[in-house]
Amino acid sequence: MNAHIITIGDEILIGQTINTNAAFIGEKLSGIQINVRKTSTVPDDEEEILREFKTCLNENDLVIVTGGLGPTHDDITRTCIVKFFHTELVRNDEVLDDVRNFFNKRARKITKINEDQALVPKEANVIRNKIGTAPGVWIEKEDKIFIVMPGVPFEMQAMMNNSIIPKLQEKIKNKDFFVKRSNLLTTGIPESTLFERLGNIDELLNGAKLAFLPSQFGVKLRVTVNEKSEELANNKISEIEQKIRGKVGRFIYSKQDEPLENVIARMLLERGITIAVAESCTGGLISNLLTNISGSSKYYERGVISYSNASKVEILKVSEDTISQNGAVSLEVARQMAEGIKSISGTDLGLAITGIMGPTGGSSEKPVGLAYVGLCDDKVCTAKKFQFGDDRSLNKQRAAQAALEMIRRYLLGIPLDE
Amino acid sequence: MNAHIITIGDEILIGQTINTNAAFIGEKLSGIQINVRKTSTVPDDEEEILREFKTCLNENDLVIVTGGLGPTHDDITRTCIVKFFHTELVRNDEVLDDVRNFFNKRARKITKINEDQALVPKEANVIRNKIGTAPGVWIEKEDKIFIVMPGVPFEMQAMMNNSIIPKLQEKIKNKDFFVKRSNLLTTGIPESTLFERLGNIDELLNGAKLAFLPSQFGVKLRVTVNEKSEELANNKISEIEQKIRGKVGRFIYSKQDEPLENVIARMLLERGITIAVAESCTGGLISNLLTNISGSSKYYERGVISYSNASKVEILKVSEDTISQNGAVSLEVARQMAEGIKSISGTDLGLAITGIMGPTGGSSEKPVGLAYVGLCDDKVCTAKKFQFGDDRSLNKQRAAQAALEMIRRYLLGIPLDE
Repeated sequence: MNAHIITIGDEILIGQTINTNAAFIGEKLSGIQINVRKTSTVPDDEEEILREFKTCLNENDLVIVTGGLGPTHDDITRTCIVKFFHTELVRNDEVLDDVRNFFNKRARKITKINEDQALVPKEANVIRNKIGTAPGVWIEKEDKIFIVMPGVPFEMQAMMNNSIIPKLQEKIKNKDFFVKRSNLLTTGIPESTLFERLGNIDELLNGAKLAFLPSQFGVKLRVTVNEKSEELANNKISEIEQKIRGKVGRFIYSKQDEPLENVIARMLLERGITIAVAESCTGGLISNLLTNISGSSKYYERGVISYSNASKVEILKVSEDTISQNGAVSLEVARQMAEGIKSISGTDLGLAITGIMGPTGGSSEKPVGLAYVGLCDDKVCTAKKFQFGDDRSLNKQRAAQAALEMIRRYLLGIPLDE
Repeated sequence: MNAHIITIGDEILIGQTINTNAAFIGEKLSGIQINVRKTSTVPDDEEEILREFKTCLNENDLVIVTGGLGPTHDDITRTCIVKFFHTELVRNDEVLDDVRNFFNKRARKITKINEDQALVPKEANVIRNKIGTAPGVWIEKEDKIFIVMPGVPFEMQAMMNNSIIPKLQEKIKNKDFFVKRSNLLTTGIPESTLFERLGNIDELLNGAKLAFLPSQFGVKLRVTVNEKSEELANNKISEIEQKIRGKVGRFIYSKQDEPLENVIARMLLERGITIAVAESCTGGLISNLLTNISGSSKYYERGVISYSNASKVEILKVSEDTISQNGAVSLEVARQMAEGIKSISGTDLGLAITGIMGPTGGSSEKPVGLAYVGLCDDKVCTAKKFQFGDDRSLNKQRAAQAALEMIRRYLLGIPLDE
């Protein structure tokens, strides 16, 4: 079954609203093996909307529309449905009850334009809206399904989860193929190197699809298989995953889309390991990530953002001589910062980072993007050099990701120098 | 000038990636009076891509495409361009230099597939990529403009800001109407209160449009005017702005979309004021924001993330009795943390925050979302209580924004208790 998602609204076209509805609907449809062939966004303009309805319904089995069902003057989608299907609006008593209940519950006075929300296209099946006032619309014509929902994300999401997805699953019960996807998140290895290490892609995939999706956090590998049954799909996916892990396994930090900090948090909690962090160039970003997880106080003890040299010396006991000899951005200072934060905190691990995030402050021997990460446990202190780019905020994110990856590799006993 | 934005990628269709590129491009184009008529997302499929190129170029003056320009096998956009324009790929030496510099800078080994990124469609003007390896493409044919950029957001954004928007502005100089938008960012005041204080909206706007856009950072007021000339538009906008500022000026921290931390950074730099930060519940987020600005070491001296009580006592000299009597989340502890961080840092200001970000850890008298912010200068220490919601990451962002707003009001002499 092929689907097209239409989102309606000027605010999306001019970028004032990011189109999360299309993403949500696309994910839900893919989840039940419906192929989303295309999505589009059109303005609050009758002509454009009618034109899009026509094209999309011609080319697809399923068209899902969101937006423009509200009670105010700029909501024209319902009018477009009436014109497109050459039908009329009729009062629906179920919906009228829903709307009245909605207002009673909130002790708000109901107005005419609110009650008019109970007017729905004649041959539509109504999708009731328990958390808003605009009902959804489900129309079937010549083996095609046409669905319209309000644009308010949580109202649309409730309709998708409670009504539309279950109904669609009924429709597509006996299907002869099964699509399954798996994401492998890698970091610390460039896209091109990853590509080389995977060797002969066709051999690796034998029919499956593999996408490389790079970002400042690393490269995401998305494997997609299309098989006759769920079992075959699962087998094929895990077979390919095995092969990929065999070649680049140590760079893979999570499956699906779990961020690196969550992966580390879980490992630290499971093993009862505590950590303290000393940051210079990342300015608190690493600690912020490590404390985004509820219960982080069980593994995160404290952090110091030793931005000034004075703070490195006073709080972390970094030697002034080391700073004057090697500079504040150096392997030795990173190591001493890690030792310092660990010893004042009494934690199992001490992590530290010092660097130059730019855009200013670089020099020929210490360019913008240079960073050193130090990691100490009770026995060893290691430190590693990194070179990132010119963009300050990207550098901060890359540096934080690299520092977190040092922790992951330490916890898994993977060599740091790879 | 009518524009269509095409984003290419299965990951967008299946909802694994939210389409922020279309929003970014749409906002930039609207900003220079280009009308974004429609946007669409198509799969990594040659046939679909070529079909979309054809339709969109027929119906619009400008087509902007992102995605599928990377070095790996699943990046087919460049091939599609070659087929669509019946052209060929030629090596571009500028791009080759850029790619080589990119790898040298990062001390990474360059591979054949990286060098092949220097192969560009024959009649294309190249848009150079300083922060990635895939160049952008600008093709003009029969009064139409066709632009292709990589899908990696920060690479695309740099190209838009540095090359494409300036070039497009050149093209569309003389036009007979002018749309201008202005964003006034407020914080510390609820949407409904803001609405009430603005009074009679129609009188205020006299024909212009006003949108209320709430988020965890506050409420953005977007004013839109449509006038015959840029001068008229500017006058109308500033007239309305004056009226709004007259009513709710103290809550407005910036125009356009400058984040609060940048506003504060500028004020601190201008006045040569230094600050140190002690964070508990925000876990480094405030310091991270204050150090996102280049040159932040001029005003930001150090930070302490005193997550454990021990760290509050040992580093910040908070009294153990105060903690045991009032609890770590209390007005008094916030005040002592602020005093402590200021005195050990020798800065002009000390900022501190302690709270419960949830979802767990709340109690009847100290519910999730409770936070106290302390701010000290040489003379006075003030502290303020805040109550946020249930969502941990939203709470961290709201708490950080509230703490930054305390600094802004202090620097401007605006009463904190409003």
